[in-house]
Amino acid sequence: MKIDGQPFRTIWPSADLSFVQVIDQTRLPFAFAITTLATVAEAADAIRNMTVRGAPLIGATAAYGVALAARQDPGEAHLNAAMDMLRQTRPTAVNLAWALAGMRPILEQPQAERAAWAFARAAQICDDDVAQCEAIGTHGLSLFEARLKDKDDKGPLNILTHCNAGWLACVDWGTALAPIYKAHDAGLPVHVWVDETRPRNQGASLTAYELGAHGVPHTIITDNAGGHLMQRGEVDLVIVGSDRTTAHGDVCNKVGTYLKALAAHASEIPFYVALPSTTVDWTLKSGAAIPIEERAAHELSHMTGRTQAGGLETVGIYPPDSPILNIAFDVTPARYVTALITERGVCAATREGLLGLFPEFKTVAA
Amino acid sequence: MKIDGQPFRTIWPSADLSFVQVIDQTRLPFAFAITTLATVAEAADAIRNMTVRGAPLIGATAAYGVALAARQDPGEAHLNAAMDMLRQTRPTAVNLAWALAGMRPILEQPQAERAAWAFARAAQICDDDVAQCEAIGTHGLSLFEARLKDKDDKGPLNILTHCNAGWLACVDWGTALAPIYKAHDAGLPVHVWVDETRPRNQGASLTAYELGAHGVPHTIITDNAGGHLMQRGEVDLVIVGSDRTTAHGDVCNKVGTYLKALAAHASEIPFYVALPSTTVDWTLKSGAAIPIEERAAHELSHMTGRTQAGGLETVGIYPPDSPILNIAFDVTPARYVTALITERGVCAATREGLLGLFPEFKTVAA
Repeated sequence: MKIDGQPFRTIWPSADLSFVQVIDQTRLPFAFAITTLATVAEAADAIRNMTVRGAPLIGATAAYGVALAARQDPGEAHLNAAMDMLRQTRPTAVNLAWALAGMRPILEQPQAERAAWAFARAAQICDDDVAQCEAIGTHGLSLFEARLKDKDDKGPLNILTHCNAGWLACVDWGTALAPIYKAHDAGLPVHVWVDETRPRNQGASLTAYELGAHGVPHTIITDNAGGHLMQRGEVDLVIVGSDRTTAHGDVCNKVGTYLKALAAHASEIPFYVALPSTTVDWTLKSGAAIPIEERAAHELSHMTGRTQAGGLETVGIYPPDSPILNIAFDVTPARYVTALITERGVCAATREGLLGLFPEFKTVAA
Repeated sequence: MKIDGQPFRTIWPSADLSFVQVIDQTRLPFAFAITTLATVAEAADAIRNMTVRGAPLIGATAAYGVALAARQDPGEAHLNAAMDMLRQTRPTAVNLAWALAGMRPILEQPQAERAAWAFARAAQICDDDVAQCEAIGTHGLSLFEARLKDKDDKGPLNILTHCNAGWLACVDWGTALAPIYKAHDAGLPVHVWVDETRPRNQGASLTAYELGAHGVPHTIITDNAGGHLMQRGEVDLVIVGSDRTTAHGDVCNKVGTYLKALAAHASEIPFYVALPSTTVDWTLKSGAAIPIEERAAHELSHMTGRTQAGGLETVGIYPPDSPILNIAFDVTPARYVTALITERGVCAATREGLLGLFPEFKTVAA
């Protein structure tokens, strides 16, 4: 998508394949800054520190991390250690493991060709992600058009989203936001309720930033407010992304997603989950088996923002002695999910629904 | 309750009844500061700016506001204007109107005695509130003891609360926190999950502060996390306060309460609402009729905290051009409320339940 009229992806290699560049998302919405990753350790740090975040972009960064490792030392021991390091950066996102599995054939290449092979493979992973996200956008657009018809074409179509499943979470387009961009570009009157998404505020910081940069009407609300807006009839549909989806349609996503699903269910509002099939964990039946990441307490207790003088400052907002638990994800049971929107189309959040679109996983699906 | 070993109420008159003092809650948890209110305008400002907050304390402050007005000018026109001004400070809290109705007989007193009458009446409102809150604590304690027995006395009893319905929201004891103080003081092993409660963070700033000051074990979590903790079995009960309760048991409270009620319902966890009967609006059947306050956008977009250098700084945390909607309350339908805990005992969140404890309202109850 575009920033100041210039098209960007969230990750790209240098022309000579000597390093990789990413948008530093920890600095948004205050500054648009590009960071260079020259080593696998820097790629792992970028994932761990959330310089890059979002399941598809984490996968793409891990893939380029393997390429950077191969450029440093293409030996098997080094590459295995590199892949282990990358795998351990974030425990919840399934397509981190998926992307690394896609990079594993690097060990079958001649040593001299491993770096070139890995850069080409990582680029392919990125291009595939862009194509998948755009397809999700097209399939989701049909659902949005139908919902607007339900309202007798009386806009705006009010869409609530949680966290950031936009192009900043992917390589381009986004997952949950792809249908919104498609709809906006097609002239549908859309308006997005953007959940702030504590503790890291990726909704307010990233979703609001990227929607604003693209010109999509939106309003930031607290995570607490969505239920009331649904009761008042001011939400027509909810759409979120997914960090991991089980073969039976349970959805692991940013913590708080489950509460919005409950509220949508109570108010009979469609609750859609947009996901590339790479985030499906075919080995899992129940979301209860997904490891839930707990992150550092300072993500809650401290907040970074712009002072009146114009500088950036981090302030402590809590009583300094109070214990803190920072849970990063939760699981929405499939029964609260109206439909999944994938790159191959829309399906029920069930094993049958998923396998109807992805029959090649029939033998492995839990 | 105590701060640094010294007992405090949240509001008290000077010995000579020339002014009123309150704890400035906007400065917590960073500083414990006492503010003087010398005029009705200052009392109204204190309510409006949330120097004082919490339904019972708002009522008490309004009562003292009338006393301060009478001290300035006991004439009928001035007192009527003062009561109008106080009534308009916060639209949602019902016992603001209740406290002002209790002060209205001031107009029947001889002019020379109006100030003294009003100070005495305001003091009575405060003493009544303290007695009611302590009674709520005693009734709630029985529920907590029963719940701990359900767990075969295996502590801790994990209690989730939203916003601040503690002694800082009242004159002393609190509503939702009163049973927690009673339980802790009685030696029950309680642990409190404290919802941060965006946008003003009254959970993290006030509830965590006062529980910590009293020595009650607690952990701050994001508003998004409670649903997941309930799914994991780490919440034994939820208890919140109420800003207004309808005669049929719908509960208006800080925005986000509804989402926790839905999650408790889905996980079959008791969801209790603690309230003095002064917050019951007997004229209302449905919570949908309650006006929901919308507050200033900067409450979301700006955050105040302590810098590393030790000073207080307010920072802007959002993209500066993104629109913001700041909804302050929501309504939890009675069907999600397990029971109401009042000063007269525990009852179902129904018209019958409430009138069983408060039969004197049978003729006025909607």
